Amino acid sequence: MADISTTLPLTPESVHTAFSKIRDHVHRTPLLTSKTLNSIASSSSDSTPSPKFNIYFKCENYQRIGAFKARGAFHAITHLIEVMGLEEVRKRGVVTHSSGNHAQALALAASHFDIPAHIVMPKISTPSKIAGTQSYTKHVYFSGSTSQEREAMVEDVIKDTGAILVPPYDHPDIMLGQGTTALELQEQYNKIREEQDGKPNLKAVLSPLGGGGLLSGISIYFSDQPEVNVIGCEPSYQGGNDGEIGLKSNPPKRIETVKTLTIADGLRTPVGTIPWKIFTSGSSNKTKNLESIYSATEEQIKKAMRLVLERMKVFIEPSSAVPLAVVLYNEEFRKWVYEEQQAEGGKPWDIAIVFSGGNTTIEAIMGIFGDKSNDKDIERAEGIKGSGGKHIAENIAG
Amino acid sequence: MADISTTLPLTPESVHTAFSKIRDHVHRTPLLTSKTLNSIASSSSDSTPSPKFNIYFKCENYQRIGAFKARGAFHAITHLIEVMGLEEVRKRGVVTHSSGNHAQALALAASHFDIPAHIVMPKISTPSKIAGTQSYTKHVYFSGSTSQEREAMVEDVIKDTGAILVPPYDHPDIMLGQGTTALELQEQYNKIREEQDGKPNLKAVLSPLGGGGLLSGISIYFSDQPEVNVIGCEPSYQGGNDGEIGLKSNPPKRIETVKTLTIADGLRTPVGTIPWKIFTSGSSNKTKNLESIYSATEEQIKKAMRLVLERMKVFIEPSSAVPLAVVLYNEEFRKWVYEEQQAEGGKPWDIAIVFSGGNTTIEAIMGIFGDKSNDKDIERAEGIKGSGGKHIAENIAG
Repeated sequence: MADISTTLPLTPESVHTAFSKIRDHVHRTPLLTSKTLNSIASSSSDSTPSPKFNIYFKCENYQRIGAFKARGAFHAITHLIEVMGLEEVRKRGVVTHSSGNHAQALALAASHFDIPAHIVMPKISTPSKIAGTQSYTKHVYFSGSTSQEREAMVEDVIKDTGAILVPPYDHPDIMLGQGTTALELQEQYNKIREEQDGKPNLKAVLSPLGGGGLLSGISIYFSDQPEVNVIGCEPSYQGGNDGEIGLKSNPPKRIETVKTLTIADGLRTPVGTIPWKIFTSGSSNKTKNLESIYSATEEQIKKAMRLVLERMKVFIEPSSAVPLAVVLYNEEFRKWVYEEQQAEGGKPWDIAIVFSGGNTTIEAIMGIFGDKSNDKDIERAEGIKGSGGKHIAENIAG
Repeated sequence: MADISTTLPLTPESVHTAFSKIRDHVHRTPLLTSKTLNSIASSSSDSTPSPKFNIYFKCENYQRIGAFKARGAFHAITHLIEVMGLEEVRKRGVVTHSSGNHAQALALAASHFDIPAHIVMPKISTPSKIAGTQSYTKHVYFSGSTSQEREAMVEDVIKDTGAILVPPYDHPDIMLGQGTTALELQEQYNKIREEQDGKPNLKAVLSPLGGGGLLSGISIYFSDQPEVNVIGCEPSYQGGNDGEIGLKSNPPKRIETVKTLTIADGLRTPVGTIPWKIFTSGSSNKTKNLESIYSATEEQIKKAMRLVLERMKVFIEPSSAVPLAVVLYNEEFRKWVYEEQQAEGGKPWDIAIVFSGGNTTIEAIMGIFGDKSNDKDIERAEGIKGSGGKHIAENIAG
């Protein structure tokens, strides 16, 4: 990766600079609204008063390679080229290890500049993601699943080829690249409000939080706009809300390891060190770059995902559904917004939610939503005499 | 329904008139493109030469109530009001029987004008569709599933209330309303081509074919444009391709009953009598309003649907996937296009596909795509001693 001494400062201006470099390489993804979801979000299932929302959905699931990661990868590569020269980068190549969207994004961005991309993927990666990565690079290596095994193989590749490591989130170039999501969504939001002859008044932006590349980029972009509250959203399952727990510790402390099998599989990583610094600091005219972090349960994520698929007709991966789950079901978040709104005269809030990606499969969805019926099948199967029943049930559940 | 003597002639001009009446009531749905799907459609899995396509997807799954049916329903209601006066229509109300999208569309359009809508639904309709309809009208009646039972209940409602019957497709008002889909898609296509500094050259429009309301509306709209081939697409399962079979009979003959359980559940109906007349006739400067009808197997429909969900990230119901299945897998259609293209110098064709709706559920998708594993489970279950095994399998399959 480009030496950190050469990277731009972590400011809104740098996000604009990053945007000017990558805008021709990435899609301008749509910003969508849904009356149905506004109405669901603005009503309570019980007698507690409900906050009121107009939600704008930034659809990075329609981004190249199906996720926002294309932004950071293109920015990292263009910056490497500026610093080292295209010839040198081509000679050395780039390398990363990833089982998911970052692998595909880096391979895409590198292939655009004819730079060799070496991608280390765990053998157990889903075949569609392996095939996606292989469509952009022929240098795919298969490793064991532990981070030790993956990192060892990356070290080998670097020794053999001199390739430059491009990490998935813990680097300023990646963070600034992902921050262009925020810049674009604000431009689009302002334009929509203008067409409605309304005053732009974006009150909050909610984004999924995994390693923190996207959320830190968004936080940087809005760091000189105190009226916009940036909020991270995590799965609470098995401590997947490491950011929330860390931020609420006294004093706040980054949690360094996470081991969760949440369905929001893009968010299973701990927050990176540089994103963490952004989250826990402020800037000259904003006390907190990041307002807060909230979390959602697996059931809440599933319910939100179902609404996006069935009602909005937009195909997203589970990680993308986490912010909507927070808006719909997190009582702490809803209470905070309600009280803020009351203090401001009860006006609804315009908020933006980032759909980070759409890379999932029908089989994965069947796995997630089949759980309940599988449980029933297991009960039913266990009621059968003999040992066959349980065996069937396990096969079904798999 | 408005007496046919009062309806507009079935011409492109009448589609324009219909559009002027309903455009404020319906969404202008997006026209999308996908490089990935263009590339898949323009290559062959074997050594046969492939036709070349640029596909434009008209996304009526993003229409109000999630399907094109809102267009016909609003047009039928506005025409009724013109002919009979709003007060009279409000006094009498409207009635239909439908288990699906037409019920919801009519209830929505009627509620907009404060007209009572009486909807007869089979008891076994999916709960989400019942709830959807009930959100627009309180007059929902539950009948048995046979058409006799449903029609008898409609007759009762008419006797009791004087309500006016609005059929789902076999009426000029409905057909002209659905035809606005074609008008809108051509406007959008022309604009896109203009922005690309290219000449508009739409060669074909493919639409799902059930009762024929949508396809006949499209055929009418393009009836004075001989260069645009309008093509109907049906599921071949259990004779679901009644239109194709009827059209290929010598002489062509409308098939009056269909009994298929195709996954494309919006297309289980036979072609209506007035649509059939449109399909089998021409107009002053076009020999055939409808170029042809092609069909796709259940497996082909599933493969096409998977591509739309996983690659385009657009959520559609199975009926919507049938035209793409024809483009990708129907050898007869592909050969015809290839030969036409060779005769014209090998240039790719710009074609449009209508995604008719997106009203399906995760459970329905699990049912459709779970089939294969269920088959395996049935085999496995049948291998178990005792009677329990088969019972489990049936429960799973259901």
